[in-house]
Amino acid sequence: MMAYELRSARYLAADIHRQLIRKGDTVVDATVGNGHDTCALAELVGPEGRVIGFDLQEDAVSRTRQRLEEAGLLSRCELHAVGHEHLAEYVRPGIRLAVFNLGWLPGGDKSVTTRWETTRKAVSAALELLSPLGAVTVCAYPGHAAGDEERRELMAFLSALRPQDFNVLHQRFLNAGPGAPECFVIQKQASAGNE
Amino acid sequence: MMAYELRSARYLAADIHRQLIRKGDTVVDATVGNGHDTCALAELVGPEGRVIGFDLQEDAVSRTRQRLEEAGLLSRCELHAVGHEHLAEYVRPGIRLAVFNLGWLPGGDKSVTTRWETTRKAVSAALELLSPLGAVTVCAYPGHAAGDEERRELMAFLSALRPQDFNVLHQRFLNAGPGAPECFVIQKQASAGNE
Repeated sequence: MMAYELRSARYLAADIHRQLIRKGDTVVDATVGNGHDTCALAELVGPEGRVIGFDLQEDAVSRTRQRLEEAGLLSRCELHAVGHEHLAEYVRPGIRLAVFNLGWLPGGDKSVTTRWETTRKAVSAALELLSPLGAVTVCAYPGHAAGDEERRELMAFLSALRPQDFNVLHQRFLNAGPGAPECFVIQKQASAGNE
Repeated sequence: MMAYELRSARYLAADIHRQLIRKGDTVVDATVGNGHDTCALAELVGPEGRVIGFDLQEDAVSRTRQRLEEAGLLSRCELHAVGHEHLAEYVRPGIRLAVFNLGWLPGGDKSVTTRWETTRKAVSAALELLSPLGAVTVCAYPGHAAGDEERRELMAFLSALRPQDFNVLHQRFLNAGPGAPECFVIQKQASAGNE
C-alpha cells in the first residue's frame, strides 16, 4: 500500500474520482484541457463505461483525442468542441461524476480562461444530471484576478445549495501560498429530491 | 466496497487515520473524551502498536479505560489523566499520528472545554514528535464563542507553518451551518528538517 501523502488539490480530486467511480459508469470531463484527467477517467469507467468530454478549444479536443487513441481508450469516450455550459444538450441524467478543472488550458492561450458566467451554468447543469451519491468535483485556481473572482462566486453559489440536496466539501492548503488550487466536492444526497 | 459518501469532519478524520496508520505504530489520542477514537486507533495500530491517550478529566479516562478493557484493547494503550499540553513528557519522538478532537466532552461538563492556550502547546508538541509523513488531525467546533475563537487561532497558527516542514489541509462543509465541525490535517514533510 502506498504511504498516505498530502499533495495538491488535483490529487485530492483524483483520489475522490478513484473512490467514487464504478466500472460501467458514465462520467463527464467538463474541461478536457490536455486530456490527462480524461484518460484517467476512461481507465476508471472501464470498457463498458463512458466519458463525455467538453472543451471550447479545438486544440484541446484534438490533443485529447490523440492521447486517448494512443492509450486505446478512445472508443469509450466522446469529445465535444463546445463550451461546457451546453453539456445538458449532450448528456443524459444519471451520471456518477462531473469533473471541472477551472482556469486556462495548460500551455495554451492565457486569454482563454473559464469564466463564472459559463462555469455556473455548467456546474448547475452537471448537478442536475447526477445520480444519487454522484458528485461534481471542481479544482479552482485563485491567485490571479479572474481566478479569484471565479472562486469567490463559486463559493457563494455552493454555500447556498440546500443541504437536503447536496453535501459540499471545500478542501484547501492553508500554508501553500495564495495561488494554490482548491478542491470542491459537491455530492448529491442519497435522498435528494425525495421529500 | 462501500459507496463513497461524504459525512462530517469526524468521518474525514477517521478516514485519514485508516489510511495513515500501519500495524505497530505509536499514536497519540490527545483528547480521549468518551474513548470512541481511542478504541478505533487501538484497533488500527494492532497488538504490537501503542496508543497514548490524554484527558484532563478523570471521568473521561475511567470511561475510556473501561471501554478499552471491554474491547480487549487495554494492553496496547496507556492513559494519562493530565492535560495534553504535557504530552511531550509522556511521548517519545517518532509517532505516526496525533488526534485532537476539540471542544467539550460529549455529555460532560460544558464549562470544561479545550482552550487555545493549552491546545497550541499540545499541537506544537505533537508536531515536533511526528515521524516523517506522520500527521496531526484536529477536529474543531466553531458555532459557539470559545470554539470560534479556538478555531480562528488554530487557523492563524497553522497558516504560518513553513511549507518545507508541513503540509496543512483544511476541510470544511460549506453548506452545513455555522456549527459544523471542520477537519485540519497537518502532515510532516518527508524531508522536514533536512535542508
